Amino acid sequence: MKKDTVIIGAGLVGSLLSIYLSKRGYNVKIYERRADMRKEKIAAGRSINLALSDRGIKALEEVGIMEEIKKIAIPMHGRYIHNADGSTAYQPYGNDGQFINSVSRGELNKMLMDLAEKNGAEIFFNERCDAIDWKKKTVHFENAEELTTIHYQLAFGSDGAYSAARLTHQLQHDRFQYQQYYIDFGYKELNIPAGSNGAFMMEKNALHIWPRGNYMLIALPNMDGSFTCTLFFPFEGDPSFASLDTKEKVRSFFEKTFADAVPLMPTLEDDFFNNPTSSLVTVKCFPWVRNDDFALIGDAAHAIVPFFGQGMNCGFEDCRVLNELIDKHNEDWHLILQEYQNLRKPDADAIAELALNNFVEMRDKVGDPKFLLQKKIETAFSKKYPGKWIPAYSQVTFSPQIRYSDALKNSAKQENIMQEVMALPGIENIWQDEVVEKMILEKLH
Amino acid sequence: MKKDTVIIGAGLVGSLLSIYLSKRGYNVKIYERRADMRKEKIAAGRSINLALSDRGIKALEEVGIMEEIKKIAIPMHGRYIHNADGSTAYQPYGNDGQFINSVSRGELNKMLMDLAEKNGAEIFFNERCDAIDWKKKTVHFENAEELTTIHYQLAFGSDGAYSAARLTHQLQHDRFQYQQYYIDFGYKELNIPAGSNGAFMMEKNALHIWPRGNYMLIALPNMDGSFTCTLFFPFEGDPSFASLDTKEKVRSFFEKTFADAVPLMPTLEDDFFNNPTSSLVTVKCFPWVRNDDFALIGDAAHAIVPFFGQGMNCGFEDCRVLNELIDKHNEDWHLILQEYQNLRKPDADAIAELALNNFVEMRDKVGDPKFLLQKKIETAFSKKYPGKWIPAYSQVTFSPQIRYSDALKNSAKQENIMQEVMALPGIENIWQDEVVEKMILEKLH
Repeated sequence: MKKDTVIIGAGLVGSLLSIYLSKRGYNVKIYERRADMRKEKIAAGRSINLALSDRGIKALEEVGIMEEIKKIAIPMHGRYIHNADGSTAYQPYGNDGQFINSVSRGELNKMLMDLAEKNGAEIFFNERCDAIDWKKKTVHFENAEELTTIHYQLAFGSDGAYSAARLTHQLQHDRFQYQQYYIDFGYKELNIPAGSNGAFMMEKNALHIWPRGNYMLIALPNMDGSFTCTLFFPFEGDPSFASLDTKEKVRSFFEKTFADAVPLMPTLEDDFFNNPTSSLVTVKCFPWVRNDDFALIGDAAHAIVPFFGQGMNCGFEDCRVLNELIDKHNEDWHLILQEYQNLRKPDADAIAELALNNFVEMRDKVGDPKFLLQKKIETAFSKKYPGKWIPAYSQVTFSPQIRYSDALKNSAKQENIMQEVMALPGIENIWQDEVVEKMILEKLH
Repeated sequence: MKKDTVIIGAGLVGSLLSIYLSKRGYNVKIYERRADMRKEKIAAGRSINLALSDRGIKALEEVGIMEEIKKIAIPMHGRYIHNADGSTAYQPYGNDGQFINSVSRGELNKMLMDLAEKNGAEIFFNERCDAIDWKKKTVHFENAEELTTIHYQLAFGSDGAYSAARLTHQLQHDRFQYQQYYIDFGYKELNIPAGSNGAFMMEKNALHIWPRGNYMLIALPNMDGSFTCTLFFPFEGDPSFASLDTKEKVRSFFEKTFADAVPLMPTLEDDFFNNPTSSLVTVKCFPWVRNDDFALIGDAAHAIVPFFGQGMNCGFEDCRVLNELIDKHNEDWHLILQEYQNLRKPDADAIAELALNNFVEMRDKVGDPKFLLQKKIETAFSKKYPGKWIPAYSQVTFSPQIRYSDALKNSAKQENIMQEVMALPGIENIWQDEVVEKMILEKLH
């Protein structure tokens, strides 16, 4: 009775989904466009390091593989801010020692592929999804030698933001709602290597940010002592990827702007010109499911920008929710897929919006004294009334029991309250007074 | 020096564009996916009759063909409202006898094709745009027998809302902004035939509307005495295209809902089940132009819903504006296309929004006494102060000198003022008092 299941894409979400379904006895085949990254060297230079947090962890625990993943995860307990004037500041992520985890996308993907195979899924590489025949229930794949037609009883498109499965779905679907939106900023990977004996050259257990108003540099730790840096930067204007067109300009700009990072980046100019400049897209579409036997999942259904560190976590949560629904609806895939879509679409839309908003917070506000005061007030209040106020960041990152869509609503409400609080005359001096606390308590009702 | 120009799509906009360019001496070839509708019978039943108004007329006059088009146009001087209780009301479109024109899409397209050829363009039929090679400057077309590769110096995609040219542009363009949005309503063509001797069975020179809250029927006159009716109706729910699934249900629903129309519709049930149900999409994308020698135009660049009667008029205005820019920039196509895009994109976005808003007005508000009073007040004020208040409908429909984007801004401002006016206690009784006029005059400053 267990269905022959085709998963298009062996990325993070496709691999995890296969584990969920294999454990239930489904017969799972994964087809991946790229070569097997466990055997061939991966093209470096376009991997934002990932921040694995509670939603992703919950989905990995649910299927019993978190212990394994922990081996390649580095806890980050807060943001380590590098200001333009050379000063630094540390902002813990939560009141109770909460942390997120730096993981290498490549290492995590390899481990998930190993676990997928260990759990019984077969992975076929270099197989490009060419077309899907919705009536015959077949997916067509093309490799260097031949075309293969694979019959499915159940199929998932987990092939990422530029999903081929989604495109064929879209082109053959009446009234398909679709939106792709690119921000005017791109990103480029840079590198801070380890010191001698694999020493970390900056604080290891933190997410480093150099906020600079309109752009920012971030750095996440790797297991080998290095940091993967990512520059989020305008495509056009001054400064921009377009304006920094010589090694001299790059060095001079970095020395002026990221003075404390430059001495740690011996290959700065080479990295800057050898590594690609990648773009950042938000994709929204509907419907995600078709014919009771096909669904988009992960970035293929809802690509988001990376500024809340939730892309992978959201995709993993998709898998966990889907798995719960298989239980709830006792393998009735009509009901499973309908509820999967009804639940996850508003949540995906919400995290897409939160992620776009967080770009402004990260690049700009975390260096702003007024914003820091606001966060201080929120933190103090939420410490005293943890049941009444969970900071927005915590709701999204550390509270998998709160849906993204509720986190968005709650955070809008909180932001309105805090705008009124921050408008109080002399808030800098009175923020610890009882009047502020009372005001927040009142507004919460 | 005149460029070899390829136009993809011989619809209304592609045909008109060819006339503009041929008159300037450009060597124009048009490739059309469909057969020649002048020789083969067109598939009936999916042509909303078009409302040609001042923007479209100006574009046709500019190139000297309006006199010809007039022969197939029927003036409509106002809306003729058919209320649910059997009463009727007539709302003239403007203070000064302004009118819009009912034209058959098919007849207009045939006439424009004839004029295109007369002006020197060549039209090739049954040629489907397969791909565009942006480096080689070639467009690939496929017909039943062969593939053709056509070199271009200048190319336009005027192939409609589901543009193949746009798709190939999109799929090969980094950071392409794209959105397609379907409303939950579809439309179906129905028919009121002529009476004996080609007599019109309702008022000829009006746009007939049966507003019914959540949906509506409209009818536009044809040259032969018939009316083309269009039912705008939900896809799902009750009532909807899904719920009216037998001839009995259709008849019973129409007799209850459109009582005065039913006796004029002898083929109602057959039309309902033989004619397709079509969907209504808004498409927004960016950029429209590429490489100084390719541009999208008309619906291919900016498909909108039909509720303001501006889809064709907007596409014709694209042609007129482009033509002005050829003069302004002395055939420098880099400058021409950049300014074309910069000017027209915000205008297209604005009319898209206005058109979506107008659906609510047409189906719902034109039958609402409060709304009618509001329109009465606006009309009286604008009659007294024509320089200070042009009603939103008139700005869009009868004022080609006002950009759509300005019309949108102006109409939002007017709507805010009218909301305040309508909130005056007892406005029904005092609307002709000086206080109302004074209030509007003040708010306008």
